[in-house]
Amino acid sequence: MVRIKVMKAVSAKNDEIAAGIRAELAEQGIKALNIISSPGSGKTTLLERTIAHFAPEIRSAVIVGDPFTANDAKRLEIAGGNAFQLNTEGSCHLTAPMVRAALDEMNLSGVKLLFIENIGNLICPAAWYLGETARATLLSVTEGTDKVDKYRRAFLIAHCVVITKTDLAPSCDFDLEKATTDIQSLNSSVTVLPLSATTGEGLDAWYDWVQQHLL
Amino acid sequence: MVRIKVMKAVSAKNDEIAAGIRAELAEQGIKALNIISSPGSGKTTLLERTIAHFAPEIRSAVIVGDPFTANDAKRLEIAGGNAFQLNTEGSCHLTAPMVRAALDEMNLSGVKLLFIENIGNLICPAAWYLGETARATLLSVTEGTDKVDKYRRAFLIAHCVVITKTDLAPSCDFDLEKATTDIQSLNSSVTVLPLSATTGEGLDAWYDWVQQHLL
Repeated sequence: MVRIKVMKAVSAKNDEIAAGIRAELAEQGIKALNIISSPGSGKTTLLERTIAHFAPEIRSAVIVGDPFTANDAKRLEIAGGNAFQLNTEGSCHLTAPMVRAALDEMNLSGVKLLFIENIGNLICPAAWYLGETARATLLSVTEGTDKVDKYRRAFLIAHCVVITKTDLAPSCDFDLEKATTDIQSLNSSVTVLPLSATTGEGLDAWYDWVQQHLL
Repeated sequence: MVRIKVMKAVSAKNDEIAAGIRAELAEQGIKALNIISSPGSGKTTLLERTIAHFAPEIRSAVIVGDPFTANDAKRLEIAGGNAFQLNTEGSCHLTAPMVRAALDEMNLSGVKLLFIENIGNLICPAAWYLGETARATLLSVTEGTDKVDKYRRAFLIAHCVVITKTDLAPSCDFDLEKATTDIQSLNSSVTVLPLSATTGEGLDAWYDWVQQHLL
């Protein structure tokens, strides 16, 4: 019981800080996207493509969460992103205080799009609000069709579900139709976007979604 | 500070229950393997193959952890496993008390091998001891070579690292040599076993490892 009470207090404090972040970003005309997925589902690769697609007209910044290393921030720096690495030292999700600390050190002048690449984990990040405008959950075809129902919270809270690595679908027995139906029966208002960042198939629909919801 | 203190108490209680599980399994001549990976890395498929390989001479049982659904326990039942589903209702890792509760309801008569399929998460399960004899961490080639360093705790605490889905390696730019070096530089005593449960390549070395360490 003690643990639950403490967790509730931590969560309430998180939401208060998240609300502050949301208000501040709105004031600066910045839209933020919280990106959630398992490890290796293609968050960083999709961000590399997306930032490059909208540059230089639209300036992006990225907060990259990882349990250890700063490799992703380096990749996004090369792709033109203003990237800030948040290392959680093994913790399994980002929190609003972590994002607050990152924002305090970032230069967001001229930035329109803020991507928050959450820790690679399909469970915990779905429970922590960071002050974002919208949430995108990624599922790679290599993970399997059954993951929608098993990790349902990540799909319930998403505004957009991106099915990644569709070029590998023939080798993976992934049922796109069933996955889409399952996602939409959990969350009727969600957009489902299959794509391959390798072949480029489906990327235009994703860019359209970003344009429409975040710009 | 309160949260840390409470978490330490929870963790100490967990380890006490885990020690009890370990002693009880040893008394019954049962070896337990805690299996850790991201969602969709192939834990259930590898278990289907392994249980079928050792049956009927060696009787196995499985505790299957999932945030939601009981699909995996059903799959393993078909494969001849004595499978018990633990649903964590969204929680991100198994704990010793959860395993204790499962064991209290399972019939382990004649069982030699107990597989504990942890929640699909490469972070939190690495921090919770369940009373197992050994730990196997799975990494699929589709997740990428860089995941070793990022999710290093899961590799640090493993007795065996299984690189899965090697049939997909040519499409995935996975560097097996680098991954193996990275894993062994984190953990010099670990065995690294690349395999494909689809083509069967590498399965014999895995069965040998199970035979040597758990039978």
